[in-house]
Amino acid sequence: MELPDHKKPRRKFLQQSAIAGAGFMLAGPLQLLADENNPNTMQQKLRSKGYAAKDNSGKLSSWEFERRPVGDDDILIDIKYASICHSDIHQMKGHWGPQQYPQIPGHEIVGIVAAVGKNVTKFKVGDRAGVGCMVDSCMECDSCTHGEEHFCERGETLFTYGYPDKRSPTGITQGGYATNIVVRDHFAVHIPEHISFQEAAPLLCAGITTYSPLMNANFKVGDKVGVAGIGGLGHLAVKLAVSKGAEVYAFTTSPDKVADIRSWGVQEVIVVDEAFENMQPYNKQLDYMISTIPYQFNVAPYVACVKPYGHFTYVGMPDGFELTFSNIALASSRVNFNASLIGGIPETQEVIHYCADNGIRPEIQIIKAKQINEAWEKVVNKEARYRYVIDAATF
Amino acid sequence: MELPDHKKPRRKFLQQSAIAGAGFMLAGPLQLLADENNPNTMQQKLRSKGYAAKDNSGKLSSWEFERRPVGDDDILIDIKYASICHSDIHQMKGHWGPQQYPQIPGHEIVGIVAAVGKNVTKFKVGDRAGVGCMVDSCMECDSCTHGEEHFCERGETLFTYGYPDKRSPTGITQGGYATNIVVRDHFAVHIPEHISFQEAAPLLCAGITTYSPLMNANFKVGDKVGVAGIGGLGHLAVKLAVSKGAEVYAFTTSPDKVADIRSWGVQEVIVVDEAFENMQPYNKQLDYMISTIPYQFNVAPYVACVKPYGHFTYVGMPDGFELTFSNIALASSRVNFNASLIGGIPETQEVIHYCADNGIRPEIQIIKAKQINEAWEKVVNKEARYRYVIDAATF
Ligand SMILES: [Zn+2]
Ligand SMILES: [Zn+2]
Ligand SMILES: [Zn+2]
Ligand SMILES: [Zn+2]
Repeated sequence: MELPDHKKPRRKFLQQSAIAGAGFMLAGPLQLLADENNPNTMQQKLRSKGYAAKDNSGKLSSWEFERRPVGDDDILIDIKYASICHSDIHQMKGHWGPQQYPQIPGHEIVGIVAAVGKNVTKFKVGDRAGVGCMVDSCMECDSCTHGEEHFCERGETLFTYGYPDKRSPTGITQGGYATNIVVRDHFAVHIPEHISFQEAAPLLCAGITTYSPLMNANFKVGDKVGVAGIGGLGHLAVKLAVSKGAEVYAFTTSPDKVADIRSWGVQEVIVVDEAFENMQPYNKQLDYMISTIPYQFNVAPYVACVKPYGHFTYVGMPDGFELTFSNIALASSRVNFNASLIGGIPETQEVIHYCADNGIRPEIQIIKAKQINEAWEKVVNKEARYRYVIDAATF
Repeated sequence: MELPDHKKPRRKFLQQSAIAGAGFMLAGPLQLLADENNPNTMQQKLRSKGYAAKDNSGKLSSWEFERRPVGDDDILIDIKYASICHSDIHQMKGHWGPQQYPQIPGHEIVGIVAAVGKNVTKFKVGDRAGVGCMVDSCMECDSCTHGEEHFCERGETLFTYGYPDKRSPTGITQGGYATNIVVRDHFAVHIPEHISFQEAAPLLCAGITTYSPLMNANFKVGDKVGVAGIGGLGHLAVKLAVSKGAEVYAFTTSPDKVADIRSWGVQEVIVVDEAFENMQPYNKQLDYMISTIPYQFNVAPYVACVKPYGHFTYVGMPDGFELTFSNIALASSRVNFNASLIGGIPETQEVIHYCADNGIRPEIQIIKAKQINEAWEKVVNKEARYRYVIDAATF
């Protein structure tokens, strides 16, 4: 997921404004590459090719661009696969604020390390590596030093695409729908041999975004866990919760997903009707519930399924980033409501290992670069089953 | 507090509709009194006098009316004092949905038991008794049998005024701004001798409404507890939290309350400015926070004061009963958000004893019936310091 421009912390905003201003004074973006103040920089900018949004139409097309040189703390990854997250679509279409184009989306990225900076010990050339929703942060504040880099106290969390980054030749971070990426070593994770690249990719956003709140919920084996919204995120939430021993109740509005969902070992699948009548039997029955529904919806009937004093987590990204609900419904439910964004780097590494070791695999469909636009339409129309993974050899 | 018409559970709504329909078929409301199917009813309707809203103007005036006969499980209380809750004003003005008038508000009620039904063992004539926000419920469901009558699973919680009640000669419950009240014994609490009637009254709503979430928060001695909004509810929240050993941080927008608040033993008083800059130093500092701010407000800067993974409770009644906030702010705070409504009868009894035993007393001003309208204006203008208590001898 990505924060919209207007929600960026003030510091980021100022930084971005400064960059935008500087742009007018430069002959072209490539001049930004000459970072002569840093003698340690490898000094070699890197050619990359991928699929970029050139405007807010929601259509991507081929684009060649440059990455920053590999810095002392950076690694270069030759991308093998990148998968499609609904957030990519929202951000490129400008749903979360105006964007700078061309912009390469993608924050579920896997590949092979092709170069490392001189300070790098975490990776060596040839290692399998993955990158998720962020590529840098201050690395010094309380959150950053406690594995919550996505909540950098200084507001310096740098998200994977569309964020101002003066080291980048294009002035912004560029994502993973591309042939390669340069990233600070700390923000890449290891991909073990016993999970395929294509199956590991969706874990970098969809996996960690559901794993983190599920682990934080601290449910016990046999507890009743509800999952609302069974798409890219939700289907991994179901598999993770089943694997951790929960009795899982899956809530979907798509009757044609029922057979799939049953095959993942859930206790029950509830096809939610417009009047929420099918949900009545689950009133106050669940120990915990997570919603991955990525738009504004009537939260009350879902919250009502959780036992009094239980917890409910919302991981979607509603329009305007605003949630509205009845305080009386919330009070009557006695439920604790929280929201969650992705997860930190240590926990991202953890979910990769957990899924690799425990046979948890996303349901994927491999596509070629030229199929991206078609795949995006299917994601929007809820036709994805359940994650599209782009073969980076086709860029 | 009171639920608005449009938020009433379906069962209540149907019941209310039935009553409204029946009204057209009767010559007058008094015919409702003749409950000949119940031979145990004392059969004697009771005269009462109080101050009622006759319309939604927010002005009350004297009104004589009748209470239902004292049933086998009922007690009659001669009211000594009733205090003014902001909810009284909202409901009478129709802010929470259309009302039936005349209607007597008041749900902070204390007095002396004047009669008891034949099944009553909880009280005897001459006992000191109090009544809060509710006067009946199903008494059989899980919530009702576990001390959470305000969350009756059957939707039969009967609030103290303005709710359809076919036993009442006026067709609705009538509250405590009056000389007497008839109530099912279970819904009255004992008022011990070592607290005055006038100081006990505000505990019946303001006291329990803050005590219940504070106890549920389970904070430890020395924990940092924030209280936002220091009015009738908030000032009791402060005193209760201080008494329970918390280090209390009080957030108010009224600079002229600072001296009062300091005198109650808080650690700090923060006068909140429009840009919330004075709140910055408290970012992620509090173990728990309760807000009693009774309107829609920007929740984010308050939630941000709570430590990650801490809890925040909202006990106000916003317009439209809707809360809106940024899911990103909530996610970044990592705070669990809940809402709370009053408390059950056992816990209401508990807060009365706790305050009586531990010297916790609301700040009150005694007024006569004819001063009610003036007092209401002061409550609306945030000029109450901090609870007006009506001397029922003046009705
Ligand atoms: Zn994503
Ligand atoms: Zn940081
Ligand atoms: Zn009240
Ligand atoms: Zn009940």
